[in-house]
Amino acid sequence: MSDTVADFKMARLSTRDADFDALIEALLDWEGVSDAEVQRRVEEIISEVRTHGDAALIELSNRFDRLMVGSMAELTLSADRLRQAYDGLPTEQRDALAHAAERIRLYHEHQKPESWRYTDADGTLLGQQVTALDRAGIYVPGGKAAYPSSVLMNAIPAHVAGVREIVMVVPTPDGILNELVLAAAHLAGVDHVFTIGGAQAVAALAYGTETVPRVDKIVGPGNIYVATAKRAVFGQVGIDMIAGPSEILVVSDGATDPEWLAMDLFSQAEHDEDAQAILVSWDAEHIRAVEAAIQRLLPGMERAPIIRASLAARGALIACRDRAEAVDLINRIAPEHLELSMADPESLLPEIRHAGAIFMGRYTAEALGDYCAGPNHVLPTSGTARFSSPLGVYDFQKRSSLIQCSAEGASRLGRTASILARGESLTAHARSAENRILGK
Amino acid sequence: MSDTVADFKMARLSTRDADFDALIEALLDWEGVSDAEVQRRVEEIISEVRTHGDAALIELSNRFDRLMVGSMAELTLSADRLRQAYDGLPTEQRDALAHAAERIRLYHEHQKPESWRYTDADGTLLGQQVTALDRAGIYVPGGKAAYPSSVLMNAIPAHVAGVREIVMVVPTPDGILNELVLAAAHLAGVDHVFTIGGAQAVAALAYGTETVPRVDKIVGPGNIYVATAKRAVFGQVGIDMIAGPSEILVVSDGATDPEWLAMDLFSQAEHDEDAQAILVSWDAEHIRAVEAAIQRLLPGMERAPIIRASLAARGALIACRDRAEAVDLINRIAPEHLELSMADPESLLPEIRHAGAIFMGRYTAEALGDYCAGPNHVLPTSGTARFSSPLGVYDFQKRSSLIQCSAEGASRLGRTASILARGESLTAHARSAENRILGK
Repeated sequence: MSDTVADFKMARLSTRDADFDALIEALLDWEGVSDAEVQRRVEEIISEVRTHGDAALIELSNRFDRLMVGSMAELTLSADRLRQAYDGLPTEQRDALAHAAERIRLYHEHQKPESWRYTDADGTLLGQQVTALDRAGIYVPGGKAAYPSSVLMNAIPAHVAGVREIVMVVPTPDGILNELVLAAAHLAGVDHVFTIGGAQAVAALAYGTETVPRVDKIVGPGNIYVATAKRAVFGQVGIDMIAGPSEILVVSDGATDPEWLAMDLFSQAEHDEDAQAILVSWDAEHIRAVEAAIQRLLPGMERAPIIRASLAARGALIACRDRAEAVDLINRIAPEHLELSMADPESLLPEIRHAGAIFMGRYTAEALGDYCAGPNHVLPTSGTARFSSPLGVYDFQKRSSLIQCSAEGASRLGRTASILARGESLTAHARSAENRILGK
Repeated sequence: MSDTVADFKMARLSTRDADFDALIEALLDWEGVSDAEVQRRVEEIISEVRTHGDAALIELSNRFDRLMVGSMAELTLSADRLRQAYDGLPTEQRDALAHAAERIRLYHEHQKPESWRYTDADGTLLGQQVTALDRAGIYVPGGKAAYPSSVLMNAIPAHVAGVREIVMVVPTPDGILNELVLAAAHLAGVDHVFTIGGAQAVAALAYGTETVPRVDKIVGPGNIYVATAKRAVFGQVGIDMIAGPSEILVVSDGATDPEWLAMDLFSQAEHDEDAQAILVSWDAEHIRAVEAAIQRLLPGMERAPIIRASLAARGALIACRDRAEAVDLINRIAPEHLELSMADPESLLPEIRHAGAIFMGRYTAEALGDYCAGPNHVLPTSGTARFSSPLGVYDFQKRSSLIQCSAEGASRLGRTASILARGESLTAHARSAENRILGK
């Protein structure tokens, strides 16, 4: 990859462009594809783990992660080992991790739904009982993309939800452990860690092996094999969303330091070449200033090649006419991260229908939310904020409906149920309801 | 299928059986399989609809539903047509439907989550904003399994959630419309109905066509083609769970009329041959009495062949030692419907961790919940109550995290974020955070 600035060109769009609709659609287009070959290999791996359990896990981990282990004990880390990792961190890192964990925990405590009930006029009790999952599985990628912050963000909501047992899997290619990741697991209340990864780890969590307990839900990011495996086991266990590349939409009123905004866009673009960073403003002069800041700052960035590739392929600077058009764009894009870098961001909130997380005001850099503001950094990508939510406590709980009829209530409901059931030709339903009609 | 009683044998198990664990596992085993051929055909249909839009819908509906329509107008029902269906119902049915709709609406009003926010000591505002989906798609099966109650149960939560537009699809094999289904759509607040079905209807809702608007989430039951198509479009749109066969677990303390319980089991078994009805009691004498009632009542049932096949293949009468064992069984089975036919069912509630809906006391027949008690009848099946919830208002809403840092808050968070970001080698993240550190 060439590193010269001359190579770099970031898309500039305007809502005034005649073909703006088509341009923005092309810019946003993303479809995660797992080809037939990946599908086939994943199904094979799942089937191997279901059939051979631990033996398959050992064999596959040795093969894919270049290990030479002979037992599951060598693929298991104890709670003591996690604490040891935490205790061994430099003080500054340990304090930062603890500060982040505490804030994340406090925020997620606010998400706990309550059980509720009421009694209607007939004396019928109705309600909903909230309970936690028995066991959650957290997938943590290994190697270069092993992020301690992801461990906190995935495990703490499960812990706050009251999940009885949190099982983490993290592959260790070439046997290399990430001490920060283990320390985060300690802080987040993880009960077991298995150093396995890929489709085999997902299969083990979904179906259980002699050593790995079967979980009720699997969350956490992963490569295409992990994503394909999660989709395949969906139904056997719950899963979180299948994540696409990360993205940010920054809306600026023109008064934020262009260098701040350039760095905010970089912080998204540095994730990987598919990441998407978009700036929207109704101030054309300001957009030019941000573009100049991008050109000025980019060569000095440690991850310049990735940032440049990402901004060139999927980034954009968009000029719009006014705030109303910016709102339309927000709702159309349904961004994972929305930074409202402007005075009075509050005034826009009632109009924003779709966004994973909303960072309000010039001081609220998206990166603060990635680590320690409190809200979750696992957010709906690729426009799925249209229908899904940040990972939260609610993902680790479920509800049971409660119904208790009085004799009078059952009698009254029985008459209605009987008529409707007979309308559907389900006469056992009708007769079961009719049994409870008084004086019948 | 033979109709003689002699053919019929329902499994009897006891927790005292040496091989009880294996027996119960075999009894519960269910894996919905869509073979490679179904997969291939579904993918073909989805691709046709994405490429040819309305034209594909017309062609496929003519082919699969034996129609002869030439335009989408002939596959569209107006709001007027729905009201007309409602007005044309016999009074008794119209009142029963309205009574059910009203109760369902009242119950679901209790499910509406609130937006919330708080400000921490640094002046940082944190919160979560709840918004409704723009558009929801409701799939309603056509033909013999077209249930007006399902229309109410799927569409009312969407309406209560504040969904802007509710689009319903229902196939009309041979052009036959079900007036009760249309009347229910009117009552439930459905905005448009298209008389299309199968994988082509799912594809149209997920991607949109010239006539059918693209929705954000698709809910509702369907056959294997519909289920396979929903799984395929998951991610492009949200979907509800992929439902397995319906099931009930009745726990009786021995004091409920055996004929009531027999009919309650029938009401589940009459759905289809794969439905599962299980009775658990610690009163062996009572189990024999229920079995006798089953033998006595079965021949008189309208749907006797289906009930018999279902009970023979997947039903069971299970004797356990005591209430504690019954609770263990409940949590192991994680039933879709749980009927606690006993004195003081309330005392069991705190121990019940997994169940879709809990029907408490002898009067609370499960059939009342199917139609009009208020809670949703779309419930997690096949043990998925371990990790999922009844369909509810929350399925038609999503959350956005809110973060607004004060200058001081951003400065303090920036220090922590910077340390953690540098620990992950994400220096643009670090520098974006550091920009907000005061006095830097």
